[in-house]
Amino acid sequence: MVSLVDKKCAPCEDASVLKLSLGEAKQLNKQIEGWILEEKNDYLQISKQFKFKDFKDSLDFVNKVGEIAEDQGHHPNLYIIYNKVKVILYTHVIGGLHENDFIMAARIDSLPS
Amino acid sequence: MVSLVDKKCAPCEDASVLKLSLGEAKQLNKQIEGWILEEKNDYLQISKQFKFKDFKDSLDFVNKVGEIAEDQGHHPNLYIIYNKVKVILYTHVIGGLHENDFIMAARIDSLPS
Repeated sequence: MVSLVDKKCAPCEDASVLKLSLGEAKQLNKQIEGWILEEKNDYLQISKQFKFKDFKDSLDFVNKVGEIAEDQGHHPNLYIIYNKVKVILYTHVIGGLHENDFIMAARIDSLPS
Repeated sequence: MVSLVDKKCAPCEDASVLKLSLGEAKQLNKQIEGWILEEKNDYLQISKQFKFKDFKDSLDFVNKVGEIAEDQGHHPNLYIIYNKVKVILYTHVIGGLHENDFIMAARIDSLPS
């Protein structure tokens, strides 16, 4: 099995971009550490909060996540609150979670701290 | 009168850092454009949403705001949602708004777009 971190995000326009069921999302969520799977009003998302020394380190992290996002063509929401960054992932075009979101999560987790 | 954009944030440890009343905040908010003064549960804040072409431009903006924040020693919350950035300002240490927040807002507005 190819691990999530070694996969690439599929293009969102692709017909293969299918919304995951809650059960499927729960299975994939077991492959990543510390991400919270949340059921919002009408969609699923995963989120994780990262903590740093200060604002500057938060911003450095956000820039690294930004590079991955641009490379993969998949952009998380990023909330910077001084020394904390909350990353929220879901796939806008399908209104829910796709394997892409878990690939992004694994790649973000593999960033050097 | 010195305009907000030409002022510098006062150190938050300074005894002169006093919480603004709603009336005082409303007066200062007239000197900046497009910022929404909000009463949260127990504190006041100002926020503004900035819109860009894409994620990369949002991130460029956040980095410019980050430079001002580091320079002034006053750090807004920054929410990046693809091509939109929401900036939220309040002064954590006093649990509300200080003139510093309006100085930051004016400086952010003066960034070249």
